[in-house]
Amino acid sequence: MNIHILSLFPEMFTGVFNSSILKKAQEKEEVAINVINFRDFSGNKHHQVDDYPYGGGAGMVLKPEPIFNAVESLMTHSEHKRRIILLCPQGERFTQQKAEELAKEEELIFICGHYEGYDERIREHLVTDEISIGDFVLTGGELAAMTVVDSVVRLLPNVLGKAESHEQDSFSTGLLEHPHYTRPVEFRGYKVPDVLMSGNHAAIAKWRKEQSLKRTVERRPDLLDKVELSETEKQLINELKSNL
Amino acid sequence: MNIHILSLFPEMFTGVFNSSILKKAQEKEEVAINVINFRDFSGNKHHQVDDYPYGGGAGMVLKPEPIFNAVESLMTHSEHKRRIILLCPQGERFTQQKAEELAKEEELIFICGHYEGYDERIREHLVTDEISIGDFVLTGGELAAMTVVDSVVRLLPNVLGKAESHEQDSFSTGLLEHPHYTRPVEFRGYKVPDVLMSGNHAAIAKWRKEQSLKRTVERRPDLLDKVELSETEKQLINELKSNL
Repeated sequence: MNIHILSLFPEMFTGVFNSSILKKAQEKEEVAINVINFRDFSGNKHHQVDDYPYGGGAGMVLKPEPIFNAVESLMTHSEHKRRIILLCPQGERFTQQKAEELAKEEELIFICGHYEGYDERIREHLVTDEISIGDFVLTGGELAAMTVVDSVVRLLPNVLGKAESHEQDSFSTGLLEHPHYTRPVEFRGYKVPDVLMSGNHAAIAKWRKEQSLKRTVERRPDLLDKVELSETEKQLINELKSNL
Repeated sequence: MNIHILSLFPEMFTGVFNSSILKKAQEKEEVAINVINFRDFSGNKHHQVDDYPYGGGAGMVLKPEPIFNAVESLMTHSEHKRRIILLCPQGERFTQQKAEELAKEEELIFICGHYEGYDERIREHLVTDEISIGDFVLTGGELAAMTVVDSVVRLLPNVLGKAESHEQDSFSTGLLEHPHYTRPVEFRGYKVPDVLMSGNHAAIAKWRKEQSLKRTVERRPDLLDKVELSETEKQLINELKSNL
């Protein structure tokens, strides 16, 4: 996969892209990540990338030319089908399902605004996707782009080792994960539940399933609508709900 | 505000914390950010921070001691009331409202796991808040912590200049923002809407309000339930909905 990031703050990405799984994925050549400053594509001698909004109002608006030019500079290098993704609060909410969809592409281009709004023509005539990571205000699209890149790249073939792959279970079952315990057996008077040390695999599996359902009922009942449940599980959920 | 981050990958934070608004906020001494490697607090000579899960299963679990020890090392330095925040997929969904709540605190501590699960005793007996930034799988809590820190710090007094403050409007009205346009008037045949160049302030305000409602109806109708609307706005929404 090829990933291109358009940003006015390329230095923001260094620490994240050179650590951990993202670093390994690049070393294994499963992904190539290229961060571009679209100020270099302004097409004007003052390297101006934003301007005042038509109709008045506070704040600046990112001009269309630098972003169109930067994206088109990439087109000459590749014949791949591409997704051009704008990070913005108005976008579709990012989910694991979207990560899985993007992980099938060959080329992803991310456009990160910073402070400013985007000229609407970028939205209408250039991008293929608008993505938001949530209902909160960030200084720019950079952290959102890093978040999407991390969640997508870890889904690529050969990227995750055995040690890292386990936690994905948490979203693939559709329920929240059961509690985990490790050594010591007793820490400041707080003990590991007996069942986990019983060696009784059936009892452990049952406890974990119950805890997973309990946590989901308490914290994220909305997730239950999307999961296929056995009759026993449905009965347990009804008991848990009546105790809330 | 004092912010402490506990992570096994401190180098991930450098680019983000030394750029843009977060950099300025630290220079203005509105916030001090301290990133700690909790491996330094393992309390064992092999600096081990994780171990196998009781009850079996794939993956490793973060041990309680290193994280309790690291958090307690901070307690001796401060008498402030503190929030101890665990980043995890099971946590409360992060929103702008939560950012505003956290922005009132004097001291925030973020605990970032990486690959592994957390020993449940950390969750039960140490942390005050569990936060998730969304329903997707990340390699660790680091990007989630940066996201929360960015959205909180930009709300602190004196942090945002005039140029940066405008986009906050997008969430404060409860509706999605109207489209923005800047120069050129015509770009590759795509024109700025005439009304924005009319100089008629009332007409511009009306167009923007309509566009904002239209975009919210089309993309995020869930937001409309939380907004107070005038009779005219309600009527417009009904018309927009009947055209969908």
